[in-house]
Amino acid sequence: MKQQLVVWGILLLSTISVKAQQQQLNLAMGKLSLQFRLNDDGAPEYAVNYNQQPVVKPSAMGFILKEADSIFYKDFVVRGVDSLLKDEAWQPVWGEVRSIRNHYRQVTVHLQQKNYPFRLLDIEFRVFEDGVGFRYRFPQQSQLKYFIVTKELTAFRLTGDHKAFWIPGDYDSNEYLYNTTRISEIDNRKAVAAATDIAVRTAPDPFAVQTPLMLKTAEGLYINIHEAALLNYSSMQLHADRTSFALSASLVPDAVGNMAYLHAPASTPWRTILVSDKAADILNSKMVLNLNEPNVLPTTDWIKPMKFAGVWWEMQVGKSTWSISDRADTTSGDGDLIPNGRHGANTVNVKRYIDFASKNGIRGVLVEGWNTGWEDWFGNWKEEVFDFVTPYPDFDLKELNRYAASKGVELIMHHETSGSATNYDRRMDSAFRFMKAHGYQSVKTGYVGRIIPRGEAHDGQWMVNHFERMARKAASYQISFDAHEAMRPTGLHRTFPNWMASEAGRGNEYNAFSTGSPPEHETILPFTRLIGGPMDYTPGIFKMKGYCGYAPDRQMHTTLVKQLALYVTIYSPLQMVADFPEHYEAHDDAFQFIRDVPVDWDDTRVIAAEPGDYVAYARKEKGKENWFIGAVTDEEKRKMNAPLNFLEKGKQYLATVYADAPDADWKTNPESYVIKQYVVDQNTVLKLDLAPGGGAAVSIKPLTAPAPKTVSKYK
Amino acid sequence: MKQQLVVWGILLLSTISVKAQQQQLNLAMGKLSLQFRLNDDGAPEYAVNYNQQPVVKPSAMGFILKEADSIFYKDFVVRGVDSLLKDEAWQPVWGEVRSIRNHYRQVTVHLQQKNYPFRLLDIEFRVFEDGVGFRYRFPQQSQLKYFIVTKELTAFRLTGDHKAFWIPGDYDSNEYLYNTTRISEIDNRKAVAAATDIAVRTAPDPFAVQTPLMLKTAEGLYINIHEAALLNYSSMQLHADRTSFALSASLVPDAVGNMAYLHAPASTPWRTILVSDKAADILNSKMVLNLNEPNVLPTTDWIKPMKFAGVWWEMQVGKSTWSISDRADTTSGDGDLIPNGRHGANTVNVKRYIDFASKNGIRGVLVEGWNTGWEDWFGNWKEEVFDFVTPYPDFDLKELNRYAASKGVELIMHHETSGSATNYDRRMDSAFRFMKAHGYQSVKTGYVGRIIPRGEAHDGQWMVNHFERMARKAASYQISFDAHEAMRPTGLHRTFPNWMASEAGRGNEYNAFSTGSPPEHETILPFTRLIGGPMDYTPGIFKMKGYCGYAPDRQMHTTLVKQLALYVTIYSPLQMVADFPEHYEAHDDAFQFIRDVPVDWDDTRVIAAEPGDYVAYARKEKGKENWFIGAVTDEEKRKMNAPLNFLEKGKQYLATVYADAPDADWKTNPESYVIKQYVVDQNTVLKLDLAPGGGAAVSIKPLTAPAPKTVSKYK
Repeated sequence: MKQQLVVWGILLLSTISVKAQQQQLNLAMGKLSLQFRLNDDGAPEYAVNYNQQPVVKPSAMGFILKEADSIFYKDFVVRGVDSLLKDEAWQPVWGEVRSIRNHYRQVTVHLQQKNYPFRLLDIEFRVFEDGVGFRYRFPQQSQLKYFIVTKELTAFRLTGDHKAFWIPGDYDSNEYLYNTTRISEIDNRKAVAAATDIAVRTAPDPFAVQTPLMLKTAEGLYINIHEAALLNYSSMQLHADRTSFALSASLVPDAVGNMAYLHAPASTPWRTILVSDKAADILNSKMVLNLNEPNVLPTTDWIKPMKFAGVWWEMQVGKSTWSISDRADTTSGDGDLIPNGRHGANTVNVKRYIDFASKNGIRGVLVEGWNTGWEDWFGNWKEEVFDFVTPYPDFDLKELNRYAASKGVELIMHHETSGSATNYDRRMDSAFRFMKAHGYQSVKTGYVGRIIPRGEAHDGQWMVNHFERMARKAASYQISFDAHEAMRPTGLHRTFPNWMASEAGRGNEYNAFSTGSPPEHETILPFTRLIGGPMDYTPGIFKMKGYCGYAPDRQMHTTLVKQLALYVTIYSPLQMVADFPEHYEAHDDAFQFIRDVPVDWDDTRVIAAEPGDYVAYARKEKGKENWFIGAVTDEEKRKMNAPLNFLEKGKQYLATVYADAPDADWKTNPESYVIKQYVVDQNTVLKLDLAPGGGAAVSIKPLTAPAPKTVSKYK
Repeated sequence: MKQQLVVWGILLLSTISVKAQQQQLNLAMGKLSLQFRLNDDGAPEYAVNYNQQPVVKPSAMGFILKEADSIFYKDFVVRGVDSLLKDEAWQPVWGEVRSIRNHYRQVTVHLQQKNYPFRLLDIEFRVFEDGVGFRYRFPQQSQLKYFIVTKELTAFRLTGDHKAFWIPGDYDSNEYLYNTTRISEIDNRKAVAAATDIAVRTAPDPFAVQTPLMLKTAEGLYINIHEAALLNYSSMQLHADRTSFALSASLVPDAVGNMAYLHAPASTPWRTILVSDKAADILNSKMVLNLNEPNVLPTTDWIKPMKFAGVWWEMQVGKSTWSISDRADTTSGDGDLIPNGRHGANTVNVKRYIDFASKNGIRGVLVEGWNTGWEDWFGNWKEEVFDFVTPYPDFDLKELNRYAASKGVELIMHHETSGSATNYDRRMDSAFRFMKAHGYQSVKTGYVGRIIPRGEAHDGQWMVNHFERMARKAASYQISFDAHEAMRPTGLHRTFPNWMASEAGRGNEYNAFSTGSPPEHETILPFTRLIGGPMDYTPGIFKMKGYCGYAPDRQMHTTLVKQLALYVTIYSPLQMVADFPEHYEAHDDAFQFIRDVPVDWDDTRVIAAEPGDYVAYARKEKGKENWFIGAVTDEEKRKMNAPLNFLEKGKQYLATVYADAPDADWKTNPESYVIKQYVVDQNTVLKLDLAPGGGAAVSIKPLTAPAPKTVSKYK
């Protein structure tokens, strides 16, 4: 349904030059509405209301361009307006739900500057039931062909000094702890200075924060600001005006200080604002995904969600090393590196992980440190480190792939680039050919360190384009990938479903090599990092204390049960089973939940949610009748009711509840848990007791035979 | 022969700390000598004498490094001294002579800083009979591993206000006209501002010039300063102090302002100073080549010097276009580009060049504009322009390569990168595979426009490394190349003989698309640009006026005969036969010289030379008894004697003399020439008359039968 909005169009065109400020477009869906107008200067402005109350006050739009005549934010008139109502459903290749409704009203405002050279600019607005999105489009025109964006002026003028869950506006890292402050208190300097565990920090503006930015108003309204479909543009930071509570776009510059190089016809990413009076609606929203383009891959049957084990945590905790050798400049008489005897990716050790994965139905085994380069890879801004095709001599690549295949397991390739994206770009083809020749179907990539091309940033346009190249080229080889130290996710996994997960946030690993992340961390991630897409958080650590050889007092900031719950609360089609096989064997009863929990879902329900405090989900396994619940809390213990009203009416199920024991506490007693089984049905309301820093995990499967005598009905 | 210089060594080590300034190393070869010392600050200094007279006064050496403790130019003591006398000969794969003598004395001074962290620095000096070279070496050491050069302090303190032949110290182009001024008058601002015909100009220092820098003293001494073996480092500019006449190294910075990223063990390029009281010695010098590493390619039999015709000059003069279409944004209903009807690289036209080449024994035919991208390639700093594998629809690549092969001709591939080296890097493998699949053995590359990675420069370290990658990768496919808009040559064709030529200077093409280069230009190039290596100058234009459709008053700045002479005076193993077939057919008698002249030589003699005025060479064809003479003059007419004493004693030869006619003049009557044949021998002295802007070309072949009656003995 596409039609001219005749009335508005005529009104605007006939009167805009006289009293532009009095004319405005209004676009509504449910409780949300969006207003657009040109102000007295012919400058576009938008505003957002929820339940007739302002959420975003009239806010600036437009650009400063590089060219001498650079004003592209005012002196506009409206040439026309198109509108569209869309209501469709689509099925993701993998995801949290089987089918996604995409329901919105759209208005495209066609603007033209009234002065020479009469440049054209379109703004496309979409209003959904749970939020609004808008983007700029630069139509094909002789007046604007190639151009450089110096500044994007998009602002978000908020209505008060909301509570904000933020990380510093860093161009190179999103692996920060979350700060919870009022907007008026945003100042990232301490956070940046303290984050010495982050390899590269570039945060020149003390008052800039990253998106997804989660906000909560004094009236209890939840607001989330992010972007969708970040392609061929740089990432958006938000600069906070601490007195007016206005946020404004601040793009990540390139090596010479430009923000984006565009060629009309072109469009920016979508700027997104989710709004609801229920926190759960933020988590349930599919708006960011909907604003991305549909899948562009011709086939997707080769894309396989999976759990994977791997040679990884043992390096994080100092048990073994990525490199075969401690130093690159110490070699034997033959010029070979002198082995340190602690190399993780050796054939015998990898077979141990393959055996473990095979025994427990885990599809993948990741091996990091398999290839040459690790002996001298970090921190030197060195362009040529890894070639991605040369194994260390103690890693028998052919034999291991043969062995893994014989055990029904596949090895996952690892490509650390050390931030040298140019080197990776040049070697991608040979690396992917090598993978396919040896049976690898997927790869985990890493970008630790300063980016090369030097002067470019992890979240700048050049790297955004690198990741698009990666997604397309990997797909051409039918390779899936999981990118660490990646650009921030914006729902591109709809368009490129082989881009299965990213790190792009502070993962579980920080509990190994740093002092860790506090218990609230996992209650904030779903409202922030995960709004953009799946996170490879690497959950499942079972040895909660004393695991770190070089820092024996280090400990996880969760209970063991909370680690189970993360498989449900932190959505990803790739989930690592991150701990050592022997640590799982020591808690085989709890490990059953990890064996059972799937990574692809038909349905998802948010049971409870409050950013910084708790989240709880129930999810239904793809193609099966099994449900899984995960609930996590912050440092506070918490009671939670989980009504099982999503179960099929009249049907009985066996629920296995993995609960923190009454004496459990993340700090003092994290490995204390109880596992109980009950018969449950649609009317059951599970009462979950979460310890401080704890959680709950429940698997629910249809009863296909009478329950054992020892299992009673849940009361 | 490698030995400890015991006396110097002991003297230095025992007394250096007390009276460092009084101790110095002296290294002599023939008339040249070099002195080295540490001054009172423990700072290294060198000086150069010629015939006991100073050429370079004691001058600074060393570096400022990026790290906090960045002083790497003083506080040194001498740890030891090694010396070496080398006298060897080597045979280039192709070149000006069959065999090259490499004869030098070397001293390596091992320095160490006397303060923590006691870093090591070696300086290697070589003194030849015609010049000196030195380079810095950073030995493997725990005190200095990865490091960044912020500044190189190498200076050349000259002894007076010499005459200098210079072009501006531009990071991105060396296609400037030469300026001839005193050192005290060096100021590149006017030259840079005037050079609007150069696409990218980056010359921030008004007093910086490029190397090779040719100098002449008031006493008639010729001095040439350049560098050799520029690998993994940025190009050196020279900043001129106009009052003290000191030149100092000024490296080309990268995107973030750093000069070089190094990893010890490492070395800088050689800094070279040629000195002689004869201009010819500068042209004869093989020192720059000798300072490069020997050939690293395992086989070289696939590397073929050749002449080539091509679809190229017709685009330069506006007869046809590189692109099939005038505009990228004008397409037919099918989305195809709308042909402009003037596309040069169409199948019919290319066959015409193939026929011409075949008929005249010209091995290669270059075709530019064969591939998609040209419709929108220039000036937009766009990363993805060309894919190097997609022909325009009117270029039948398979048929043309079949046709060329059937005629004994090979097509030369063309890869314009539009400066996007990242894009070329990523596509090199597929481009080279495509070439080999279709019968191409060599490629001409181009880098017109600002470099991508953005912020990098044509002559910076990143591009230097790009060209090394190019040379190695092309060699791995047995592909030879000729790079336009390339980094400045420094003799790397010894190490990578498949890198056969570069443009890297102001070629003949400027007489088409600009107001051209004055007649003196070709008398300066051998003393400047060509010191670094072969230049693809594209000589051989026969239509001297009225050739440029869009600028009918444009004309060549030479006579026709001078165009012939350039095949001898501008050395390259690749020489274009640049004009249209029909223009050669109009002067088929003169064209005989081009048919005859080879591109590979057994011997070379400089007959006469004075920078800015004239040069004349005689060269002996590789593996044959034929000699060829080329002489060129500036805007002055000139008489020149060419003694043929290089001919074999007692043998008679047939000389064909292509001379400017008495009424010839580059400006008014450039196509006026006379061709005469004589019998000559070892005792003959040819008297050559060069018109203003003119030249002379002579082919000399052994008389195998009695000379025709019409040919008399030369008197």
